[in-house]
Amino acid sequence: MRILVVNPNTSRRMTTEIAQAAREGARPDTEILCLSPEHGPETIEGHTDEAIAAYHAIDLVAGRRSGYDGYVIACYGDPAVAACRELVAAPVLGIAEASFHMACLIAHRWSVLTLLPRLEPILQDLLVRHGVERRCASVRAVSLGVAGAGEDHERTVELLTAEARRAIAEDGAEAILLGCAGLGPVAAPLGAALGVPVIESVSCAVGLIEALVGCGLSTSKASAFAAPEPKQLAGATPHLATAYGLGGGQS
Amino acid sequence: MRILVVNPNTSRRMTTEIAQAAREGARPDTEILCLSPEHGPETIEGHTDEAIAAYHAIDLVAGRRSGYDGYVIACYGDPAVAACRELVAAPVLGIAEASFHMACLIAHRWSVLTLLPRLEPILQDLLVRHGVERRCASVRAVSLGVAGAGEDHERTVELLTAEARRAIAEDGAEAILLGCAGLGPVAAPLGAALGVPVIESVSCAVGLIEALVGCGLSTSKASAFAAPEPKQLAGATPHLATAYGLGGGQS
Amino acid sequence: MRILVVNPNTSRRMTTEIAQAAREGARPDTEILCLSPEHGPETIEGHTDEAIAAYHAIDLVAGRRSGYDGYVIACYGDPAVAACRELVAAPVLGIAEASFHMACLIAHRWSVLTLLPRLEPILQDLLVRHGVERRCASVRAVSLGVAGAGEDHERTVELLTAEARRAIAEDGAEAILLGCAGLGPVAAPLGAALGVPVIESVSCAVGLIEALVGCGLSTSKASAFAAPEPKQLAGATPHLATAYGLGGGQS
Amino acid sequence: MRILVVNPNTSRRMTTEIAQAAREGARPDTEILCLSPEHGPETIEGHTDEAIAAYHAIDLVAGRRSGYDGYVIACYGDPAVAACRELVAAPVLGIAEASFHMACLIAHRWSVLTLLPRLEPILQDLLVRHGVERRCASVRAVSLGVAGAGEDHERTVELLTAEARRAIAEDGAEAILLGCAGLGPVAAPLGAALGVPVIESVSCAVGLIEALVGCGLSTSKASAFAAPEPKQLAGATPHLATAYGLGGGQS
Amino acid sequence: MRILVVNPNTSRRMTTEIAQAAREGARPDTEILCLSPEHGPETIEGHTDEAIAAYHAIDLVAGRRSGYDGYVIACYGDPAVAACRELVAAPVLGIAEASFHMACLIAHRWSVLTLLPRLEPILQDLLVRHGVERRCASVRAVSLGVAGAGEDHERTVELLTAEARRAIAEDGAEAILLGCAGLGPVAAPLGAALGVPVIESVSCAVGLIEALVGCGLSTSKASAFAAPEPKQLAGATPHLATAYGLGGGQS
Amino acid sequence: MRILVVNPNTSRRMTTEIAQAAREGARPDTEILCLSPEHGPETIEGHTDEAIAAYHAIDLVAGRRSGYDGYVIACYGDPAVAACRELVAAPVLGIAEASFHMACLIAHRWSVLTLLPRLEPILQDLLVRHGVERRCASVRAVSLGVAGAGEDHERTVELLTAEARRAIAEDGAEAILLGCAGLGPVAAPLGAALGVPVIESVSCAVGLIEALVGCGLSTSKASAFAAPEPKQLAGATPHLATAYGLGGGQS
Repeated sequence: MRILVVNPNTSRRMTTEIAQAAREGARPDTEILCLSPEHGPETIEGHTDEAIAAYHAIDLVAGRRSGYDGYVIACYGDPAVAACRELVAAPVLGIAEASFHMACLIAHRWSVLTLLPRLEPILQDLLVRHGVERRCASVRAVSLGVAGAGEDHERTVELLTAEARRAIAEDGAEAILLGCAGLGPVAAPLGAALGVPVIESVSCAVGLIEALVGCGLSTSKASAFAAPEPKQLAGATPHLATAYGLGGGQS
Repeated sequence: MRILVVNPNTSRRMTTEIAQAAREGARPDTEILCLSPEHGPETIEGHTDEAIAAYHAIDLVAGRRSGYDGYVIACYGDPAVAACRELVAAPVLGIAEASFHMACLIAHRWSVLTLLPRLEPILQDLLVRHGVERRCASVRAVSLGVAGAGEDHERTVELLTAEARRAIAEDGAEAILLGCAGLGPVAAPLGAALGVPVIESVSCAVGLIEALVGCGLSTSKASAFAAPEPKQLAGATPHLATAYGLGGGQS
Repeated sequence: MRILVVNPNTSRRMTTEIAQAAREGARPDTEILCLSPEHGPETIEGHTDEAIAAYHAIDLVAGRRSGYDGYVIACYGDPAVAACRELVAAPVLGIAEASFHMACLIAHRWSVLTLLPRLEPILQDLLVRHGVERRCASVRAVSLGVAGAGEDHERTVELLTAEARRAIAEDGAEAILLGCAGLGPVAAPLGAALGVPVIESVSCAVGLIEALVGCGLSTSKASAFAAPEPKQLAGATPHLATAYGLGGGQS
Repeated sequence: MRILVVNPNTSRRMTTEIAQAAREGARPDTEILCLSPEHGPETIEGHTDEAIAAYHAIDLVAGRRSGYDGYVIACYGDPAVAACRELVAAPVLGIAEASFHMACLIAHRWSVLTLLPRLEPILQDLLVRHGVERRCASVRAVSLGVAGAGEDHERTVELLTAEARRAIAEDGAEAILLGCAGLGPVAAPLGAALGVPVIESVSCAVGLIEALVGCGLSTSKASAFAAPEPKQLAGATPHLATAYGLGGGQS
Repeated sequence: MRILVVNPNTSRRMTTEIAQAAREGARPDTEILCLSPEHGPETIEGHTDEAIAAYHAIDLVAGRRSGYDGYVIACYGDPAVAACRELVAAPVLGIAEASFHMACLIAHRWSVLTLLPRLEPILQDLLVRHGVERRCASVRAVSLGVAGAGEDHERTVELLTAEARRAIAEDGAEAILLGCAGLGPVAAPLGAALGVPVIESVSCAVGLIEALVGCGLSTSKASAFAAPEPKQLAGATPHLATAYGLGGGQS
Repeated sequence: MRILVVNPNTSRRMTTEIAQAAREGARPDTEILCLSPEHGPETIEGHTDEAIAAYHAIDLVAGRRSGYDGYVIACYGDPAVAACRELVAAPVLGIAEASFHMACLIAHRWSVLTLLPRLEPILQDLLVRHGVERRCASVRAVSLGVAGAGEDHERTVELLTAEARRAIAEDGAEAILLGCAGLGPVAAPLGAALGVPVIESVSCAVGLIEALVGCGLSTSKASAFAAPEPKQLAGATPHLATAYGLGGGQS
């Protein structure tokens, strides 16, 4: 099985770490390819970052519509996921939704740890969209930028451990979701410290893609995720032009 | 990997069919053992059936608390799932919740087909409990008993196909969930007829167990699913007595 | 009027206390019979306890399907209630749902006090199932086992009073629901200390059965609570065999 | 026990019929007094009708703040209920909320029959406010004015029976709630025709008042329903002036 | 454009302050008339106050059914709004709903500051009725009576500022709604102190009326807000008699 | 007042029609500038279309961050709205959210008419995100492409009128929302045919911007919509580079 994991930001360090987390969750015979777009924000920490990153991630996926058994979008806001479902036949998962569903299978209530407080509203909307707001005990932020979190793992573990303990003690969390694609390296030390399941989202998404493929399931094309309607697309990249069935990437 | 699939009813035919569906969804190196209790109802079509079957399924699982990497309770009302999560360390999944989560990954809205209309309220409660009521386009019943559905597959396919078509056309369903453990044999013909994903629930649960194990995740023991409190258990079966840490199955 | 109150656990002390609470809420001309099964857990403090107790409570009710104007299941997780509604013609109430509905009639928002923290998730699910989650200001636990709570009433009152005061001051509770069948003896001292209504659940259920009977109402048999479908029931107890219309309790 | 049943409209025929329904639901030793205000709309079929009737009903109750063990506001929009809870110490119930709670005790899902379609939005808001919107299978109207419905019972039964049958067959209703205070006389023929429970709301409210009193419960005065704050009340009626602690009904 | 702003209480000071807030939010060419009923409570701080004030506000509006392009009911519980929608052709807005909708346009989550804690339940019901409960971070009260709040603006600003800071820091509020019609004078100092948008509700309602009129929109008369059904109205005021099409205000 | 209306697609005809609708809703002294990006899809009919159009709309707004009192994103899926709120100080509205809020002010329940059925899931998610799903009677599609709808207004009016009549008769809609930016030209004939309010969304957004500005309100920058975090943005357009505080549009 071949899974394309897309890191929608342009941080090489994060791409490497995401690839490692993906491989740790994958079966031995699953091949993981982890790519990031050439263009876009270095980290994704808000709506504008997300929208720009989504555009470039879609372009990346549009250029690789075949040859993969599944796609993972490795940003914990699930940008571009719905669009990519329209573009490819194989299943596409966001890592936030993947972690939500996995968490529901092993804990009655769970909390999401994110980095910057400004991301909490984005996560709250995601939780409602997926119907899991009653299963989520809390969303908590540690006021650490995405780039900074990756640079000093020790400090990151320390801050996340303290916040997770509050989620467990005060909010009733029975499991902790790591709400950022780049937190794979801290999952093990955090789990050792907490004594409750710590859910790393990239590996969840890989595992769920494998499960879908194993069951012979993929995205329904009946309505929400049907291929884009044919139309003019001014200034289209070559990949998008092809995906829309246009001749040469020009409208 | 070894997965114990428990058919909570006592129908041998269904146990055989469930085992086959489980194996079809499993990886080649996953070993499936499918068992059913010696006692209890032949089919599960209501609250009393469920409660009796749950008791016997719990007893069965209490006697096999080790040696498995995961457990599947193969009845589409998810009886005994929460209790079994208390009894074993490995993950435990119900097939209804498994199918709900898998469906959310591949379709915006989906419908559940059940057999008897009296099961609709049970499913509606389950959907709300799992927060997926807004993702469920409809629950539809075909007025066929569980035993009857298994005896005449051709007639069952015909009725389910007609009802599924109504769900797609009238309710906006983009995928169809088969809401009974014994419908594995009709999944393929139904899928061929409909043109939208048809989700067989036993294979979903097996795939999700494999995904959880692959990610190193299992039930949180922090609160809701902690081991039972030690206590007297009058008239306990030997397995339950052991699970409760009692000497000889008598209180 | 004759009401059968079933204590689903096997604690004689609790059966005695439940009977007393039931009688205090009943009209003078209502006859209360309070029984508990011979087998099952001494207290109910989790999903496995509940499932085992439900089985034995169902068997008890199956053996007394006539001769009563109503049934109360006196455990604050409402086990066996839906199943018993299938088995008898008279109304059946759980004490948790009874207390929820009564609370809604006299307070805008109210809190539930339970004993062990592990019971909070069970209560949260119950609240959602009954649609009263927005009316519930909080669920709070005092970290006391059911058996222990009954042995030292003074200590129990002290702990519950402190927790109830927090619910009133911090959560906006206008009434306090006692979330355990065995808390009848502490209702009066708690009410005296708090100055807001304290709702004892067993008496609520008895009062509501009387109200239903007075209005000529009982369980609808149209769908969710129709009598069990006829079927083989391997290893059935004599009462269950009869309830299922089977000859001799053997399938 | 003495219960004051207030018909907030000025139709004498309806007051008589409401009194009869109340007495049919009451215990033999409960004394029912049924009154209606001297002023206000003859029937209540919209928001303005409701607001005017509420004012006069509040004035009526303000003049009878003692001497009763409970109060019922007998209009199926529950006008004045919250205000009356502020004015008196004994419990106060609206007949709509009473019927909702009783219905939840005997049916998984139920439908409300109302008369004019314009009342559907009012009922939908009430259902949400009480958290029972998921238990309500449908609200259906028969396009009959309140006055007209009372004048030709035969025609009313015919229309309601047809609509109820649609609710049962198409919406999954397991019980039917009569959504108007004046439908007491049609409850019995409707029940005979339908084969599912038909819930008459005035008797429900009386039964629930009896249950509350039997359990020693009444409105919490902790917050939402505390007595009105003392203040000037220009043009107050004598009763309201007294209820507000003002000297002589003039501010 | 002419807008009638109704202060439903009888406080002249509040009428003056409400008129000023209304004019500050209005376009230069909008004419604001601010009136209050002759009768009713001096302030509105509970359900009874609201019901009495609603009656008198309805009577006031019934006497001015033409000559205005829109109506604002300036009490933060939105009394009489639905009734007035039945009585007039022009749009009618409550100030609470106006502030909820405006807040949703500029902040992801926001908090409402009210005065007395007993008003919190009323606001919570309003929030649910308008579907904005998930957008509301918290409702917080400062334990100040409405009359008192208006007499000592300095103290009021101090208390509201402290409470608003808690809402921002602890509840995640990104904007603050002033939950009382009489808080116009404190909006500016509060905004200066907080650094997040402070939403004054009377000006919001005026702005929204202007927007509706600008778009050519007014209340739908199709169902919920159709004119009252013709009927007898005993003791009707002259205005109400006319509004109901009755000859002389007597039934 | 100057408002920038952004048509995120590249259809010149739609830009012209959107500008006209915007001007019809605006005050005489409001200046409307209507622009569309040079690049992107000709119409927006799915997730990929939306994501591409969002990127180009954000770039357009990033280049015009000052000089406007408000911004309208004129596509009925509200793409780019949250991102643009981060980029500019003035208020930003999507036309879908604008129409939802306006509809809530004039009708109890309303229906949204869209063109292609594949857009229904997008609208359902939007309705839930804004908390108005209970106010929405239905979402109905007429199976007409966006381009086609603009080319044959007569046919479009005919199809929309028929579907709107079903929404009114079968779903209880009291007002009709036109769920596409390009439907301005059909609003008047539709309104004339239906007899209930027809809500054109572009004019709603303009009117609400005017109302916000009149009340001195704009987007809270406290959390969800704070300016983007400073960071590298590879391949940034000049406008985005400036908006992110980067030197020359290159990272």
